[in-house]
Amino acid sequence: MTAPGTLTGIDLDTAGELAAQLRVDSIRSATSAGSGHPTSSMSAADLLAVLVGRHLRYDWDNPQADSNDHLIFSKGHASPLLYAVFKAVGVVSDEELMTKYRRFGSVLEGHPTPALPWVDVATGSLGQGLPDGVGVALAGKYLDHLPYRVWVLCGDSEMAEGSMWEAMDRASYYQLSNLIAIVDVNRLGQRGPTELEWNLEAYARRVGAFGARVLTINGHDLGEIDAALTTAADGTTSQPTVVLARTIKGRGFAEVENRNGWHGRPLPPDMAARAIVELGGERSLRVRGPLPDVPAGTAPAPPAPGAPSSMPAYSPGEKVATRKAYGDALKALGADHPRVVALDGEVSNSTHADEFAHAYPERYFEMFIAEQQMIAAAVGLGVRHYVPFASTFAAFFTRAFDFVRMAAISQANIRLAGSHAGVEIGADGPSQMGLEDLAMMRTVQGSTVLYPSDATSAAALVYAMAERSGISYMRTTRGAYPVIYDAGETFPIGGAKVLRSSPDDVVTLIGAGVTLHACLAAAESLAGDGIRARVIDLYSVKPIDTVTLAAAAAVTDGRLVVAEDHHPEGGIGSAVTTALLETGPLTLRVAHLAVRELPGSGTSAELLGAAGIDAGHIEAAARDLLGSR
Amino acid sequence: MTAPGTLTGIDLDTAGELAAQLRVDSIRSATSAGSGHPTSSMSAADLLAVLVGRHLRYDWDNPQADSNDHLIFSKGHASPLLYAVFKAVGVVSDEELMTKYRRFGSVLEGHPTPALPWVDVATGSLGQGLPDGVGVALAGKYLDHLPYRVWVLCGDSEMAEGSMWEAMDRASYYQLSNLIAIVDVNRLGQRGPTELEWNLEAYARRVGAFGARVLTINGHDLGEIDAALTTAADGTTSQPTVVLARTIKGRGFAEVENRNGWHGRPLPPDMAARAIVELGGERSLRVRGPLPDVPAGTAPAPPAPGAPSSMPAYSPGEKVATRKAYGDALKALGADHPRVVALDGEVSNSTHADEFAHAYPERYFEMFIAEQQMIAAAVGLGVRHYVPFASTFAAFFTRAFDFVRMAAISQANIRLAGSHAGVEIGADGPSQMGLEDLAMMRTVQGSTVLYPSDATSAAALVYAMAERSGISYMRTTRGAYPVIYDAGETFPIGGAKVLRSSPDDVVTLIGAGVTLHACLAAAESLAGDGIRARVIDLYSVKPIDTVTLAAAAAVTDGRLVVAEDHHPEGGIGSAVTTALLETGPLTLRVAHLAVRELPGSGTSAELLGAAGIDAGHIEAAARDLLGSR
Repeated sequence: MTAPGTLTGIDLDTAGELAAQLRVDSIRSATSAGSGHPTSSMSAADLLAVLVGRHLRYDWDNPQADSNDHLIFSKGHASPLLYAVFKAVGVVSDEELMTKYRRFGSVLEGHPTPALPWVDVATGSLGQGLPDGVGVALAGKYLDHLPYRVWVLCGDSEMAEGSMWEAMDRASYYQLSNLIAIVDVNRLGQRGPTELEWNLEAYARRVGAFGARVLTINGHDLGEIDAALTTAADGTTSQPTVVLARTIKGRGFAEVENRNGWHGRPLPPDMAARAIVELGGERSLRVRGPLPDVPAGTAPAPPAPGAPSSMPAYSPGEKVATRKAYGDALKALGADHPRVVALDGEVSNSTHADEFAHAYPERYFEMFIAEQQMIAAAVGLGVRHYVPFASTFAAFFTRAFDFVRMAAISQANIRLAGSHAGVEIGADGPSQMGLEDLAMMRTVQGSTVLYPSDATSAAALVYAMAERSGISYMRTTRGAYPVIYDAGETFPIGGAKVLRSSPDDVVTLIGAGVTLHACLAAAESLAGDGIRARVIDLYSVKPIDTVTLAAAAAVTDGRLVVAEDHHPEGGIGSAVTTALLETGPLTLRVAHLAVRELPGSGTSAELLGAAGIDAGHIEAAARDLLGSR
Repeated sequence: MTAPGTLTGIDLDTAGELAAQLRVDSIRSATSAGSGHPTSSMSAADLLAVLVGRHLRYDWDNPQADSNDHLIFSKGHASPLLYAVFKAVGVVSDEELMTKYRRFGSVLEGHPTPALPWVDVATGSLGQGLPDGVGVALAGKYLDHLPYRVWVLCGDSEMAEGSMWEAMDRASYYQLSNLIAIVDVNRLGQRGPTELEWNLEAYARRVGAFGARVLTINGHDLGEIDAALTTAADGTTSQPTVVLARTIKGRGFAEVENRNGWHGRPLPPDMAARAIVELGGERSLRVRGPLPDVPAGTAPAPPAPGAPSSMPAYSPGEKVATRKAYGDALKALGADHPRVVALDGEVSNSTHADEFAHAYPERYFEMFIAEQQMIAAAVGLGVRHYVPFASTFAAFFTRAFDFVRMAAISQANIRLAGSHAGVEIGADGPSQMGLEDLAMMRTVQGSTVLYPSDATSAAALVYAMAERSGISYMRTTRGAYPVIYDAGETFPIGGAKVLRSSPDDVVTLIGAGVTLHACLAAAESLAGDGIRARVIDLYSVKPIDTVTLAAAAAVTDGRLVVAEDHHPEGGIGSAVTTALLETGPLTLRVAHLAVRELPGSGTSAELLGAAGIDAGHIEAAARDLLGSR
């Protein structure tokens, strides 16, 4: 419902008034909060006034409408401007702006997050909004087949981030003519001039070379802005468009215009008062831009997930790599669940994501070797309610940790699969060994971390991930190991499997992935000497099955051997002991076997042995705990 | 000592023979190892033959010579080619090539590492060798003032990584005319064609737009290669040079030339035999290229570190942010230690690295917002034995995790400082809060993780980091808190400080950074009720002071409250309990206070309270452990 007095389809004079209001409100909200980035907002106020008043097709009363354009502030620190826009379109009140911005418990956070319904993704770590926008634009062009556009306001400082060029490159490769980046070239970064300052020609050469259509304008000339945004959305090209706007930081208040030292600083109240006078005073314009051409709801509603009719089945004893089971299950899931999409970083023949790619090429996005853009594209596809699975080597997810971290703040639902975990990979050496991934993924807010040991559980957990919210991660193993479980066995997230147990168990062996097989072998060998060992398959590392662990610890008098193909910090050992200590006072005798030294090349067996995480070392550790070696 | 029969200053005909030998040896070594990337080696063999035989100025008998050129394989998977070069110059034997490549315990690893004295940095995670080379070239141009060149062999697939464009950008900004990238454009990646295939014009436009001189050649025409490498090193430009070489993957063996499906696969023995015949058989050429113009040893030897004569002093009770102490100490260290250099990612006025930048501008490198390139530049500067300190917000080091991980494999000695840790930062919100950094840095192989609570300890630890090998990380806090320690107090890495203790202590409170101050306040409050709490300042998180922790646990009957401004996984709580459990059977009653929910904006006090890590929550947790609330 549009409020009375709302101006729709505003002319450029009104846009000028709106821009002044956006500047004034940016100043007011930051000054009231005592922090924030008003000058970075003022440089882009003219751009946003014309965009929101005349070009952005958006039903502000229905932010979930499929046909809405998308507006992403890649320069998330310009949140005062974004929230001033929200006031101007009438979805946030002036009182909220003045009393809630950056305050505790408020959704008007220092940098935008999807706690606000008009915000797609959290920004504030620079260089992420444009890559996220690539993901939304991929959905629009290749999956939704809807004419919405994705408008991304970028800062000039963030053009120094390589991830922006990954985004430019993939946007041009995928011919995302529905993606429009507006770069606010205000010349000044946090601590001083940007690298390229106002060298718009240099930006234009780079952006053009990366395959975008370039429009260079004076970002304070409303007519130039309007013409550029009209051209940007004209649909006459297969390229993405980049509007390079020469702007002035702090524009509208002479005391701070183009002055260094005013980044991230609110104006003191006296200066704010002078600025507001200079800008013509407070205003309360209420405006609305155009609505989407296509009414809401014309896109297909997300179908309910199908039954797991196609889940692959494996026979116990058969040797199958869990990475292969990942690929098999992903392909099967694709048949059962039409909104599942997959991405990979040019290693799909290793992660086995290629099985999905061959079966469903229209739902597979090759991101080449650009893990940051891969995660961002997954987040963007998730904005449009697709169910993305993204894969690469476990080691190479470290390349995208900041994107995974921000995806959690975006409350994105994305699924990640990291293959080639640990020293088990053998001859390729440490650069290819994921030895930090469990620690990295566990510490992500609200994450799920899975580490199956056989193909049956890997396949079942791929299906479980499809239903899981938040960031979920599966670690898979390079080599083929025997299938442990019958087809049809269930693997609830947060559970664990007890593979050997008796009331007479004296020690518990805990493993996952390759070390679970070593635990089983060690238990068999111990049994030969009459030593009963309980064996736990810790396929769900986070959340973790504290009940099963505590029961085992109780029976085995706190004697635990935990073996993991990972550095000792933050992985399975840490997960197990942390969980057990939270159950209350407990006496534990833990032998923690992990990869403590820098590994090199070799065979799997040699490297697992050298790291001290093979069956022999697990058995020896158990005997040590029992004082029986 | 050059062996008899060694050819020096070879002509192009000999270079052709050498190229054939490099191909044959690449095939032989990979086939003997049963894994490896021969076809990715064969595409670049002509480039390397001409480079090593006629252009690379390198004293192979003295790899540490200051004046040597540098050769970095950014496409580290072409290790068979690199090791074949090492055979050709006589530093690795044919027997080693055939029996050690990719074998357990050998330094001829699957991807190159500095375990070999002729290798500067570990590669194998693509997109890192060129950024590393930028660091070496910065040292050559701005610090060593030596005429060595940095030659980097790049793959075409890795041009999809944003980090390559960060490197191109900074190389051009810093006018690194001593940096020459040779891109082996062989059209095929791991799973199929690269994004740009043989579109060398597109590469040329991009590279040129980023400010490099571009030379496009046929990478199999020895004359073209020789001319390009001559031009590249002619010293007539202030730009870096990029040689774009059109090549054929598998060149020299028709059965695999330009064929998909041969990435990362050795030739089976029968194919290898046919390939060797086609290439004219095995050879044992011994060649040496030119020596450096400047004899070894003309560069100034690294001076011994000076005494900490300038270390800043603070008075107990004075409120000083640890990030400010970092800046003060870094500046002071710069006076004491002439090889200390600093880098920052465009936030030096927040991290306080700007104090060093203002004092020693010739030793400060602004990397703009490009954290990956920042870490790589630090690694490259470390190759030349400088002592780099790199800083940004704690949160934004996640952007460079893969580079930190690889730096550890490079056995680099780099120092990192992450400011603005945790919810303590307040209003900026979660995108700017480092809540994962301790987990990330702890899990890095051989790392050191420090987290001072006051300015005195922060300053002392900056000095300690300068002497520390490996990856060391200091976490600093945004806000100013009271100085705890007198100037002159010592803080050995691996130690901890007991700030309150008595034989009657009933509970131990463990904190670092902002939570240490909360622990002190909680202990004071508990003391009012006659409850004696031991308080430990865990300034060294890794290595950790197990002795002090175990003594406290013993006295306080295993009752520990650990409070940290970090997610619960992989941080201080994990470090403490893991260390204690390694001391043997132990009964622990641990209350672990950490940031468990997604935070928003607010004041420090509001957010610390909401996360449950302030003094009130610590006190309540202690009372709970004692059953006395």
